[in-house]
Amino acid sequence: MDLNAQWVVGFVDGEGCFHIGINQNQKMTLGVQVLPELTVVQHEVDAKVLYALKAYFGCGVVRKNHGTRLCYRVRGHENLLHKVLPFFEKHQLKTRKRVDFAKFRKVILLMDKGEHLTPEGLEKIRAIKERMNSTTFLR
Amino acid sequence: MDLNAQWVVGFVDGEGCFHIGINQNQKMTLGVQVLPELTVVQHEVDAKVLYALKAYFGCGVVRKNHGTRLCYRVRGHENLLHKVLPFFEKHQLKTRKRVDFAKFRKVILLMDKGEHLTPEGLEKIRAIKERMNSTTFLR
Repeated sequence: MDLNAQWVVGFVDGEGCFHIGINQNQKMTLGVQVLPELTVVQHEVDAKVLYALKAYFGCGVVRKNHGTRLCYRVRGHENLLHKVLPFFEKHQLKTRKRVDFAKFRKVILLMDKGEHLTPEGLEKIRAIKERMNSTTFLR
Repeated sequence: MDLNAQWVVGFVDGEGCFHIGINQNQKMTLGVQVLPELTVVQHEVDAKVLYALKAYFGCGVVRKNHGTRLCYRVRGHENLLHKVLPFFEKHQLKTRKRVDFAKFRKVILLMDKGEHLTPEGLEKIRAIKERMNSTTFLR
């Protein structure tokens, strides 16, 4: 299945989610792991579309989600920094997910400078995360 | 907001619904009205995207849906036959909504021949409708 960049943007505008996980993990410097991810969930009958996204971005995995749903998921700093970010910088989202992407991007760039390893940086990231995926905070 | 055809396809693959309503209506020949519609629902913060779709297709309305949600909706035989059908014939959907669109198209074409006004035609339409928007019937 060949995907077109604009189709990918439209589909992610509809079904995608830019998410920042902040999880307790004692192995990490601050006892906390920051885990940004892009996810797209579909019913398993549309597995093909998720694998096509995986091929298109050249990264990520397709995994079982809840029940009959599958999830395409991209994690990993290099994938997000070098594949996901440049794509959505070049091809702008049209819904409020553009705002979420901008915040997501800001977190990835903070992490690229290692700021998630300092208490101040982590606080910045927490503050950004709190304003994501919400219809209240649109800036 | 300028929309690109492939973005529209991707967004409808994610958020669109091709639906055939069959409602009791004593004013109609068989006491039943067949009401096909394309709908796209979004949170009201994304009203702009729905109005952009309305402008793109040159038909339809944007209406309140439940709570904070809005719906872009296209009804009307001429709109569906001359605007919606040709668009998705030219620009193929990539998810299982392609199958729903094919069934939706079949109903519009039956209606174009007036078959919804005959008991046999209406039965055909009911049978098609029953196999739509389901993950069980993928043909």
